[in-house]
Amino acid sequence: MVQSAIGIDLGGTNLKGIIIDRDGKGRHLTRMPTGAEKGGTHVMENILSLIDTLIEKEGTTDTILGVGIGTPGFVSEKGIVDGAENLPGWKGTHLYEPVKEKFGLNTIGANDATVAALAEARFGAGRGVRNMVLLTLGTGIGGGIIVDHKLFTGTFGMAAELGHIIVETGGIPCNCGLDGCVERYSSATGHVTLAKKYAEETPAGSDTPFTLFAKNSPEKLSSKTIYDYVEQGDPVALRVHETASEMLGRLIGIICNTLSPDLIILGGGVMKSGKIITDAVARYASQNCWPMIWEKCRLEIARLSEDAGVLGAGAMVFDTFGNK
Amino acid sequence: MVQSAIGIDLGGTNLKGIIIDRDGKGRHLTRMPTGAEKGGTHVMENILSLIDTLIEKEGTTDTILGVGIGTPGFVSEKGIVDGAENLPGWKGTHLYEPVKEKFGLNTIGANDATVAALAEARFGAGRGVRNMVLLTLGTGIGGGIIVDHKLFTGTFGMAAELGHIIVETGGIPCNCGLDGCVERYSSATGHVTLAKKYAEETPAGSDTPFTLFAKNSPEKLSSKTIYDYVEQGDPVALRVHETASEMLGRLIGIICNTLSPDLIILGGGVMKSGKIITDAVARYASQNCWPMIWEKCRLEIARLSEDAGVLGAGAMVFDTFGNK
Repeated sequence: MVQSAIGIDLGGTNLKGIIIDRDGKGRHLTRMPTGAEKGGTHVMENILSLIDTLIEKEGTTDTILGVGIGTPGFVSEKGIVDGAENLPGWKGTHLYEPVKEKFGLNTIGANDATVAALAEARFGAGRGVRNMVLLTLGTGIGGGIIVDHKLFTGTFGMAAELGHIIVETGGIPCNCGLDGCVERYSSATGHVTLAKKYAEETPAGSDTPFTLFAKNSPEKLSSKTIYDYVEQGDPVALRVHETASEMLGRLIGIICNTLSPDLIILGGGVMKSGKIITDAVARYASQNCWPMIWEKCRLEIARLSEDAGVLGAGAMVFDTFGNK
Repeated sequence: MVQSAIGIDLGGTNLKGIIIDRDGKGRHLTRMPTGAEKGGTHVMENILSLIDTLIEKEGTTDTILGVGIGTPGFVSEKGIVDGAENLPGWKGTHLYEPVKEKFGLNTIGANDATVAALAEARFGAGRGVRNMVLLTLGTGIGGGIIVDHKLFTGTFGMAAELGHIIVETGGIPCNCGLDGCVERYSSATGHVTLAKKYAEETPAGSDTPFTLFAKNSPEKLSSKTIYDYVEQGDPVALRVHETASEMLGRLIGIICNTLSPDLIILGGGVMKSGKIITDAVARYASQNCWPMIWEKCRLEIARLSEDAGVLGAGAMVFDTFGNK
């Protein structure tokens, strides 16, 4: 009997669900609003309703091995959410029991960024790779670590908090309470922070097209609009790009000296700018770790983008409950 | 039949060998000079001769499962040494074939600091711990990572190069080519560097007993003599202690945010000063990572000290060749 898995990806705005086979082929992809503003209980009800919809579309639970859930924050061994400060009332939610009660299905949950790493390892740029790390560059920076082909989340589900590694002594204050976290520089939010800072530092007489844009339309600043100017060679936009790349290169240097991974994958919205980022980051990474370790490490762009969450959530089910 | 393993610990000065049982109980502990100055071929001959001595003392090879070797540098999957710049001619040495040819025994090798981590995990402060990290604070800083009870060396045997993680932007230049490696501050060598620097910065009129000692007898500066003054409350010695502890706390913060280990163990000669170091390091570590991760992480002093190398080398044999 071919076994399937339900994958759920919980985002701040949208909830996504899918049913996948072991090879990552998916069906019944379904989206609904998360309803985060109505609190944690409501979000859990929406997850149950999404699972219900998927089972209805599938027509049976007989072939379904279990449910995987990727969520902001951490998931304890018993399936209780911790952290996830951005989703009011979500912390403390029990993920496993309600699904078991309603559908009789086993559930496994993990942080959404780590789940995406598993997706890339099984179905994306990391297929077949033994030891690898995914960095998801979005509003923040999320991380996921694969050790010996398996998702490594640590004993308490909290490993790979890579966005909050400090890469600049006394650097930009982060809302986590530390100063100089890589997330403050190399995420989409970091790009905008740097753009505003460098534009402000540019005196009126030395304005470039980019600083004029940043000064006149700060609300239009985004990783994408900044990289439009980077591609035009605007010197101040390039300075944003270089700083963001250097800080990310430092993080990658730290990851290399720690784990010596075979592959580091960069994903998330920021990576729509692609090769210009990997090229610069590789240059800085090589200056921030042991040369021998860097020589053995490849740097690639993620392949699954927006579907990494649901696919990785499903993949966790096969890893956890599948008889291999 | 009770199986045993030969453990070999290769140091710059001494070569140590032992035969251990699965529970870490050892016999026939033997020391001989490494003979590093005579080159890599000579060192390998000494290792073979040490194994010969151990087998002679044991009286048989029938019960011996294999040989484990901890060495400076890295060991590739095929058993070839890389790195290890401090042992002239050692790089490129084949560890496995000569042992197989001469004794018919299987061999497994790894970096000496990672091997020590396995020893602490099996027989020391980390017994039974699932995810942990050992930092060995000696002349340099070595690291070893245990993931899911197993030694993690990365695909190429190069993981856990933790002494060369950068903890201070634009910090003290390291002989590895990077600036601000934690090894420059928190190793025994780092302590001496900081002591000289802070003594020099102290004008003659403000000398303390410690700065007078450092100025008059710089050749007597060592981690031990520095901590003698720390214990007396000398303000300049305390400054060395605080800087060294802060930098080590930053490294531990990075390790926590990356791996969220259950336990971090501090070992090596520096840790003879014990609790005064762990107390200060814990204070700084808590300021350099996610509070929730730090709450779950214990910090302890190594238990095996000078025997960690041979014991861990033996433990690798059971992990690699033992039928569990």
